[in-house]
Amino acid sequence: MNKISVIMGSSSDLETLQEAINLLKEYKAGFEVKVLSAHRTPKELEAYVGSAAKNGVKVFIAAAGGAAALAGVIAAHTTLPVIGVPIETRSLKGLDSLLSTVQMPAGIPVASMSIGKAGAKNAALFALEILGIGDKSIAGKLAKHKKAMRVKVLKIKI
Amino acid sequence: MNKISVIMGSSSDLETLQEAINLLKEYKAGFEVKVLSAHRTPKELEAYVGSAAKNGVKVFIAAAGGAAALAGVIAAHTTLPVIGVPIETRSLKGLDSLLSTVQMPAGIPVASMSIGKAGAKNAALFALEILGIGDKSIAGKLAKHKKAMRVKVLKIKI
Amino acid sequence: MNKISVIMGSSSDLETLQEAINLLKEYKAGFEVKVLSAHRTPKELEAYVGSAAKNGVKVFIAAAGGAAALAGVIAAHTTLPVIGVPIETRSLKGLDSLLSTVQMPAGIPVASMSIGKAGAKNAALFALEILGIGDKSIAGKLAKHKKAMRVKVLKIKI
Amino acid sequence: MNKISVIMGSSSDLETLQEAINLLKEYKAGFEVKVLSAHRTPKELEAYVGSAAKNGVKVFIAAAGGAAALAGVIAAHTTLPVIGVPIETRSLKGLDSLLSTVQMPAGIPVASMSIGKAGAKNAALFALEILGIGDKSIAGKLAKHKKAMRVKVLKIKI
Amino acid sequence: MNKISVIMGSSSDLETLQEAINLLKEYKAGFEVKVLSAHRTPKELEAYVGSAAKNGVKVFIAAAGGAAALAGVIAAHTTLPVIGVPIETRSLKGLDSLLSTVQMPAGIPVASMSIGKAGAKNAALFALEILGIGDKSIAGKLAKHKKAMRVKVLKIKI
Amino acid sequence: MNKISVIMGSSSDLETLQEAINLLKEYKAGFEVKVLSAHRTPKELEAYVGSAAKNGVKVFIAAAGGAAALAGVIAAHTTLPVIGVPIETRSLKGLDSLLSTVQMPAGIPVASMSIGKAGAKNAALFALEILGIGDKSIAGKLAKHKKAMRVKVLKIKI
Amino acid sequence: MNKISVIMGSSSDLETLQEAINLLKEYKAGFEVKVLSAHRTPKELEAYVGSAAKNGVKVFIAAAGGAAALAGVIAAHTTLPVIGVPIETRSLKGLDSLLSTVQMPAGIPVASMSIGKAGAKNAALFALEILGIGDKSIAGKLAKHKKAMRVKVLKIKI
Amino acid sequence: MNKISVIMGSSSDLETLQEAINLLKEYKAGFEVKVLSAHRTPKELEAYVGSAAKNGVKVFIAAAGGAAALAGVIAAHTTLPVIGVPIETRSLKGLDSLLSTVQMPAGIPVASMSIGKAGAKNAALFALEILGIGDKSIAGKLAKHKKAMRVKVLKIKI
Repeated sequence: MNKISVIMGSSSDLETLQEAINLLKEYKAGFEVKVLSAHRTPKELEAYVGSAAKNGVKVFIAAAGGAAALAGVIAAHTTLPVIGVPIETRSLKGLDSLLSTVQMPAGIPVASMSIGKAGAKNAALFALEILGIGDKSIAGKLAKHKKAMRVKVLKIKI
Repeated sequence: MNKISVIMGSSSDLETLQEAINLLKEYKAGFEVKVLSAHRTPKELEAYVGSAAKNGVKVFIAAAGGAAALAGVIAAHTTLPVIGVPIETRSLKGLDSLLSTVQMPAGIPVASMSIGKAGAKNAALFALEILGIGDKSIAGKLAKHKKAMRVKVLKIKI
Repeated sequence: MNKISVIMGSSSDLETLQEAINLLKEYKAGFEVKVLSAHRTPKELEAYVGSAAKNGVKVFIAAAGGAAALAGVIAAHTTLPVIGVPIETRSLKGLDSLLSTVQMPAGIPVASMSIGKAGAKNAALFALEILGIGDKSIAGKLAKHKKAMRVKVLKIKI
Repeated sequence: MNKISVIMGSSSDLETLQEAINLLKEYKAGFEVKVLSAHRTPKELEAYVGSAAKNGVKVFIAAAGGAAALAGVIAAHTTLPVIGVPIETRSLKGLDSLLSTVQMPAGIPVASMSIGKAGAKNAALFALEILGIGDKSIAGKLAKHKKAMRVKVLKIKI
Repeated sequence: MNKISVIMGSSSDLETLQEAINLLKEYKAGFEVKVLSAHRTPKELEAYVGSAAKNGVKVFIAAAGGAAALAGVIAAHTTLPVIGVPIETRSLKGLDSLLSTVQMPAGIPVASMSIGKAGAKNAALFALEILGIGDKSIAGKLAKHKKAMRVKVLKIKI
Repeated sequence: MNKISVIMGSSSDLETLQEAINLLKEYKAGFEVKVLSAHRTPKELEAYVGSAAKNGVKVFIAAAGGAAALAGVIAAHTTLPVIGVPIETRSLKGLDSLLSTVQMPAGIPVASMSIGKAGAKNAALFALEILGIGDKSIAGKLAKHKKAMRVKVLKIKI
Repeated sequence: MNKISVIMGSSSDLETLQEAINLLKEYKAGFEVKVLSAHRTPKELEAYVGSAAKNGVKVFIAAAGGAAALAGVIAAHTTLPVIGVPIETRSLKGLDSLLSTVQMPAGIPVASMSIGKAGAKNAALFALEILGIGDKSIAGKLAKHKKAMRVKVLKIKI
Repeated sequence: MNKISVIMGSSSDLETLQEAINLLKEYKAGFEVKVLSAHRTPKELEAYVGSAAKNGVKVFIAAAGGAAALAGVIAAHTTLPVIGVPIETRSLKGLDSLLSTVQMPAGIPVASMSIGKAGAKNAALFALEILGIGDKSIAGKLAKHKKAMRVKVLKIKI
C-alpha cells in the first residue's frame, strides 16, 4: 500500500498535526507517524528516510518549528516528495519556521504549507492529492471533500 | 502522457521560469506552458484548469508575484497538486508573493517553493518527484540528478 | 436602490465585520451580506459578482484572511469598486492578509483598508463615501458622523 | 465636470505617478495635479481640500512616502473618497509608506493601493471606477480597458 | 513656566501614558494633557499647536497608534521639539505606529521613542532633559533619578 | 557657546551625516564632530561624553548602523538629550539600526530619527530646535527655514 | 576554576534565564550571575568585565531585551567569548532584541542564541561546549546529555 | 594543533568568507576549509563532522544562505562549538538565513554571527577567542588586534 510518512521534530508538534492525522484516518490512507528530529536524532532520521521507500512510503510530511531543518534534511536523503509544515513559534509566530522550511536552495525541493494547523491539514490533503494521481479511490474522495466544503459554505445564512 | 502544466501570471515571469522549463525539457517530461492570470483572465484560467485534467495534466506549477492569487485560484478548481512559485517583486522582494502563495486556508492546499529562480527550478523538480512515484524512468533520472549534485559539490577544491 | 455588497470568505469573519454591518444599517444603506470564498466556492463567487451589478450593487466589500485572494478575484470580474478588508490571522496577525489584499498588480485595483475591525468599519464608511458622491442624503449623514466624532474627541477631559 | 484631484507630497513622487496621470488623460477624465505636503504645507493642504469639493472634485488620490501622513490628513478634512498610494522608499522599500497609509483608525477611511507605480496606476483606475458608477461613458471605457488587458494576455505565445 | 504639552490621539492611549504623566507630576514640571487627533480634530489640533507656544509650551509629546500621523502633523505646525510615542497596536504590535512616527521626511523632525509604555516614560524624561538644559533644578533631578536607577540595579542580589 | 556634539560610530557614516553637518554650519551653530565607537572605543567614548558637558555640549547626535549601541551608550553616560540616527545597512536596510536605536528601555531615552540621510538632517534640525528654546536667533532661523520649505513646495508647477 | 559569567540587563530577565542557570548547576560548572545594565550601570559593567577575567571568568553570557546593547558592550571590553541571549519583548516579540544582539559590526563578535528560554538554555550549553574543549569532564557530560536527548526522542510513541 | 573548521554550503559563499579566511591565516591559526552541504552532501557532511574532532578540530564555522540548515546539522553531530554565518540572500537579504541559523531549539546550540561579510569575519574572531582561552599566543594577538582597532578609530580626523 502506498504510504504517507508523517514526521514531527518534537512530540509537542502533535497538537498541530492531530487534525491532519485524523484526516488521513478518514481517508483510510496508509500512513505512519514518527517523532524524529534533524537536530536531536539525525542518524535515526537518515536511517528511517533511507528505509521508508522500501516500506512503501511515497510522500513525506515534515513538521518542525523555529530553525526548522527537518523537511530540508529529509529532502536531502530522498527524491520522494517532501511536504513541510511550519509550526507556529512562541516569539516569531512561525515566520522563522516558514522561512526555514520554504527558502530551500535550488536542487532540493520542499513543498511548504501555511503556518500551523491549517498548514498541517493541507499537508495531509496535498499528500492525498499526490497519491490520488495514481489512485482513483483517493481522487474520488478528494473530489467529494471539495464538493462538501463548497456546499458547507453555500449553506451559511447571515 | 502525464503532463505538467506551467502557468505564469505575466509574461515577465518567464525569466524566472526559464531554467525550470529547460529542466523539464532535459527530463523529456510532458509539459505545457501558459500565460494566464487570476486577475486579468479569470474565466480562461478556470476553463483551462477544468480541461487540463482531461488532457493529461497531473500537476500544476503556478508562478505569480505581489498579491499572488494564481496558485490558490488554480487549487480552487482542481484536486490535482498545485505548486506555487512566488515571484520576486520590486519593492517587497517577494515577501508579498510568498505570503500570498503559502498562507492558504485549510482545505485548499498549495505547495509553495522558495522565492524566485531557485523556487522555480525546485517547482519543476518537485513536479517530477510527484510524477516519479508512478514513473520509474523519471525516478531514476531524479536519483541520477541528485547524485550528480553531490559529486559536483564534492569535487570543489578551495 | 444603490447597494453595497459585503462578502466574507468565511463565516468566522463575521465577528470582524459585525460593526461595519451595523453601521450600514444605521445609515439605512442598501446592502447585502454573503459568505463566498475565492478558494472554496469560486464558481458561485464569479456568478454572484456577474449578477450583482444587475441587482443594483455599486460597491463590493470583501473580507478575507491569510492568502486573501477574495478581493482581487472579485476585482477580476467587475469594474465596480472593490474594497478589501484584511482579516487578522492567528500567526502572522494579518500581515499576510494585508499584503495579499493590497499588493495588486497594475490593472486590477483593490482598495485596502487597515487590518481587522477598524478596517471593516472603514470599509463601510468608504463604501458610503463612494455612494455619497451621487447621494446627498448619504453625504449629509457622513458629514454629521464626522462632526460627531470630532465633538466626541473634544468633550474628553483628562 | 466631476474631477479627480491627484496630490503628491513631493515633486519627486511625479515619476511614480506619471503613468497614472497619462491614464487619466487617455480617459479624458477631469483631473488636477497638485504638490502639497501634510508636513511642509499643512495649511495650504487644508485650504485646498476644503475648496476642492466646491470646484467639482469628487475623489482624491494622495501619494506619499515614508511616514506618509498625506492621505490620512486629506481624509481628515473631507468625506469624499481618498485613495492612498504608498511611494517606494530607499531604505524600507515602501513598507513604511504602506503601513502609514493603510493602518488608519476606525472613522477615517483611506483606500490604499499597492506600493509604487502599479499602485499609482491602480489609484487612477479606482478613481475612475468610482466616477464610473454615475458616468456610463467612464464605465464603458473601463470595461473596454479590462477586455483589452484580457486579450493582451491571451495573445501571448510562449 | 516652561511647559510640556502631552497630546494623545485617543483617550484609549491614556493607559500607555499614565506613568509618563505621573513622572511629570513627580518632577513638578509644568505640563498639560490633551486628547486631539490628527484625523478626527485636525483644525483644533492645528489651533492648539499654534497657541501652545504663546502659553509657554516648549516641548510636545505626541502619542498615537496605527497610521500615527499625530507627531508629524504637530511638527508641521511648529519649530518646537516634538517627541513621538508609538502606541502598541492589536495586530501589528506597534510596528505600524513606529514606522509612521519615525520615518519622517527631511525637514520635519520627530523624535521617536520606543513602542508603548517604556517609550511613553522615556518621552517624559526626554522632554525633561530638553528643559533641563536651561533649568538647573530639572537637570539636578534627572541626575538624581539616573543615580537612583543605578543604585536600584546594583542592589539586586540573585 | 551652546554646542551640538555629532558622534559617528565609523568614518563611513560621514557620507550619511555630511548634509546634516553642512546645515549646522549654515546655522552657524556651535558643534563638534567625533568618530567614536561604543564597541571599538568604549572608554574614550565614555570619557568624551563625561567631559563634553563641561565643554558646553548641550545635545548629542549619535549615528550608527547594525547593532547600533552608540546612542544608547551615550545616553547611559549623560542626562543631556541624545538623538540617534540609524544608518542604512547593506543587508537589512537599516531596520536593524532603527530597532537598536529606538527600542530603548524605560529610564534611558534616545530620540530616534528616520533611517539614513533624511534622519541625519532631521537630527541636526531637532538639535537646533532644542537649542532654539533658549536661543531666539536659532528659533528665528528655524522659522525662516520652515517658511522657505513651504514656499519651495508651493512654487512647484506640474 | 574556569567560570562562566551570566549577566542580565534587568532582574525581570531571570525568568528567561532560570533553566539555563539550573543547567549550569547540574553540570557543577563554575559560574556567577550578575544584574548589570549597559544603559543603567555602564561603569559598573565595564569594571566588572575588566575584573572578571582576573577572577577566572572565561565566557560571558549576556541576556537583554529591546535595544539590547549588553552583549555588544561586554564584547567591547574583552576578548573572551561573549554569548548573547535576546529576551522576548512585549511588542516586537524579541525581533528587536535579536537584531540588536546579532547584527554586530566586524571586529567585535557576539554569538547570538535564539530568542527567549530556548536561547538561554543553549547559551549555557554553548558556554559549556567552549569550556569542554579544555575540560574532558564537561565534554563527557555534554556527550551524555546529547545522547540522553536522542534517547528521549526515540522513546516517544505516538 | 587545535584547528578551526570552516564549512560553506556552496562555493559561491567563498566571497563572503574570504576575509575571514585571510584573518585565520594572519593569526597563523590551524584551520581547514570545506564545501559541504546539509542538503546536497548530507552523508559526507556527517562523516566529516564525525572525523573532524579526531583530526584536531575544536571549533566549526558554518556559512549558509536561505533555509540555512548547515550550522544546525553540524551541531546535531557534535558537542564542539558551532558558529553560524548567515549568508546574504538575493530576495530576503539574509533575514531567512539569519532566522534559519539562529532560531535553534533548546538542546542544540548554534552561535549566530551577523549577516554577511561582517559576520564571517566575526566568526573567525569568535573562533579565535574560543581557542584563545587555552592559548596565550592567540589571546595576545586578539588583544593586540582589539587595541589596533581602537587606535585606528582614534586616529580619524574629520
